Amino acid sequence: MRLERPHRTERFGAVRIHELQRVIELDSGDAAMAGPRSRESLRVPSAQLRAIEQDMVIVVPCMNETRRVIEGVLSGVPHDCLVIMVSNSARGPVDRYEIEAQTVEQFCQAAERPAITVHQRDPGLAAAVKAAGAADLIDDEGLVRGGKGEAMFVGLAMAALTGRRYLGFIDADNFVPGAVNEYCKAYAAAFQLADSPYSMVRISWHSKPKLRDGRLFFSRRGRTSEVTNQFLNQLIGEYSGFGTEVVATGNAGEHAFSLQLGLKLRLAGGFAVEPYEYLDMFEQFGGVLDSPHQEVLDKSVSVSQIETRNPHFHDNKGDHHVQDMRMQALNVLYHSPVCLPSVRSEILDFMLAHRAIGEGDEPPRERIYPPVGTLALDRFCDMLTTEAHSLRQVPSDGGDGLSYAPQLSRWPRH
Amino acid sequence: MRLERPHRTERFGAVRIHELQRVIELDSGDAAMAGPRSRESLRVPSAQLRAIEQDMVIVVPCMNETRRVIEGVLSGVPHDCLVIMVSNSARGPVDRYEIEAQTVEQFCQAAERPAITVHQRDPGLAAAVKAAGAADLIDDEGLVRGGKGEAMFVGLAMAALTGRRYLGFIDADNFVPGAVNEYCKAYAAAFQLADSPYSMVRISWHSKPKLRDGRLFFSRRGRTSEVTNQFLNQLIGEYSGFGTEVVATGNAGEHAFSLQLGLKLRLAGGFAVEPYEYLDMFEQFGGVLDSPHQEVLDKSVSVSQIETRNPHFHDNKGDHHVQDMRMQALNVLYHSPVCLPSVRSEILDFMLAHRAIGEGDEPPRERIYPPVGTLALDRFCDMLTTEAHSLRQVPSDGGDGLSYAPQLSRWPRH
Repeated sequence: MRLERPHRTERFGAVRIHELQRVIELDSGDAAMAGPRSRESLRVPSAQLRAIEQDMVIVVPCMNETRRVIEGVLSGVPHDCLVIMVSNSARGPVDRYEIEAQTVEQFCQAAERPAITVHQRDPGLAAAVKAAGAADLIDDEGLVRGGKGEAMFVGLAMAALTGRRYLGFIDADNFVPGAVNEYCKAYAAAFQLADSPYSMVRISWHSKPKLRDGRLFFSRRGRTSEVTNQFLNQLIGEYSGFGTEVVATGNAGEHAFSLQLGLKLRLAGGFAVEPYEYLDMFEQFGGVLDSPHQEVLDKSVSVSQIETRNPHFHDNKGDHHVQDMRMQALNVLYHSPVCLPSVRSEILDFMLAHRAIGEGDEPPRERIYPPVGTLALDRFCDMLTTEAHSLRQVPSDGGDGLSYAPQLSRWPRH
Repeated sequence: MRLERPHRTERFGAVRIHELQRVIELDSGDAAMAGPRSRESLRVPSAQLRAIEQDMVIVVPCMNETRRVIEGVLSGVPHDCLVIMVSNSARGPVDRYEIEAQTVEQFCQAAERPAITVHQRDPGLAAAVKAAGAADLIDDEGLVRGGKGEAMFVGLAMAALTGRRYLGFIDADNFVPGAVNEYCKAYAAAFQLADSPYSMVRISWHSKPKLRDGRLFFSRRGRTSEVTNQFLNQLIGEYSGFGTEVVATGNAGEHAFSLQLGLKLRLAGGFAVEPYEYLDMFEQFGGVLDSPHQEVLDKSVSVSQIETRNPHFHDNKGDHHVQDMRMQALNVLYHSPVCLPSVRSEILDFMLAHRAIGEGDEPPRERIYPPVGTLALDRFCDMLTTEAHSLRQVPSDGGDGLSYAPQLSRWPRH
């Protein structure tokens, strides 16, 4: 993969946010190549990508997708990545999770690769999460809450048990397997180029095909993203005294981080999870508030933003979904201790104007969970592997003459 | 890349047509892998793909596409492939070819790779084609005809001058760079797996997003393809005595062949070009008519058909285009000397029913050109490089500290 070389970087304390870099080539060939290093572009040869992929987990949060779409997503994830699917699909008379798990298993058999699936509302998973010390994730029914942030939390905790060092998220509702492949390659390329063990990669898709007056139109930006990015940039600008547009990926569903960083992050619940990652980094490593993480401050955090080539083509979840996402992002922004009064007041104005809150109300608070790195992951592993009946590690026993080492282990190597 | 293992193969004389194989994984990782060979799938490690890509030309026929779309297509072609764009774009007051050539040049500078572009209606190209002995391609204006088959003919002749051994075609009107990448990888994988130096790969896209009642619908088959495939299968079935559905790629715009095969093929003009490749192979190597190519008969011809994962997402050229393509395919089928009377009569019925011909009329004949391998390619090269003013070989002189060997040479190594 070849990326544009980023020329600007904004700092927020120890957090270095690189400006958006375009993907120039999906596949830039091998290492052997004549010519000096280009001034324009950064080339990551496929062998280097491969080394990262072998060390990467791809967590796929999934909710009621069809077999076809799931199979397409799996076909796009590079072979060497380990897929962990966290499903919140309906388990009624037709158990959609069972259908998904079978789809994953059949794919894995054909592709001779392992994968792990678990259902977000499995009582055994809830028990494991509780035993690990994250009871906040549990709702009144005694199960893990059904939000996206909670699915990512579970995926991150499971990824920590694999011994792999990188984690990328890919939404299951993607119609373009080539886009999935590009996201994974972009993660790997950015990790390879990052100069800190604390690194994050966030995707800005090139365009999103939409229907407009019965025609297809390739829209450049999502509505939610525009608002979230604007306020995040305003927050950064208020500190530096210089207006900026550096943040282009406030709501990036497709993003990845090194586990060294991820295990220190506090994830938010629901759709607040992606924008809150920025805020949590600002809070923990931004130099505004005290931080116990001297090593992170010393090495700094690298945030890459990649504009991918493929259109982001997924199911239209409707306006309600968009409004939800936008407001949850603003809720965490508003309540962040690093958010300055001027930004706070503009957020209030925006939410009032969009009738998200009433006159004199405060935006609601979103749930913020403790860093996965502070949990008792050994207990999580024990409980998960014995109590979570929806847990599938495929292939479980080397059927068809093939065998793999078990993927989850109670001795995380982090 | 990992492909489904094909279980059935139909023979038409020395032409072996393998049944459609699905792509299982876009990226199946490296060669080092535990476990025995799978019964279900065929895995081509990336190093083997790379070796083929380094030996492959990608010809991109282009007509009035936007910069954005062209850049996307280029970004999807693996770095090691050599792109040759043959454009038939308008050269009015706004010279669209110049814009395209600049787009290619800028991309190549950023990606540090070579490419070649030429305009199909360049008088110098016409002179080169004539000098090489293919005067049939020239129209009343003294220029190369504007059809797709003619663009492919030019691309094939130029590919022969590069010394590379494989040639793949990718249409320029593709909105999904990941799909372009998948086509190229599928070509390389199939060539790697082919057991004959005379090999062809044809793509059947997985689905095509279409608007239907204001909603997106993923259609499985194109209308043109269904008709062409049906009659090609009927033709094969009439010889073998067994009905078959083996041909799924009669109209495949995305296809590739080894130059050893390609230089022997007679290409048809216009949209007849893709289906006629099947017919020409049946005519030349099918054992029905005499063939001077004993070596091909001995080694046989391998035709792979690959069902790709990505949706085929391109501009809607309208119904007229589809009707045109369908009828041109039927014209060459009807007039092929290997076409049996029963198939011929059904084609007539179909064309009458669709008002493509009148009662008692014969379908028109399409133009069929001589094999590129029979041309005086040294003269073609001389004339092309001196007279075709639209010809661009980028980078021409190693600007920016980079340099490449000239791509076209008058000593074809075939």
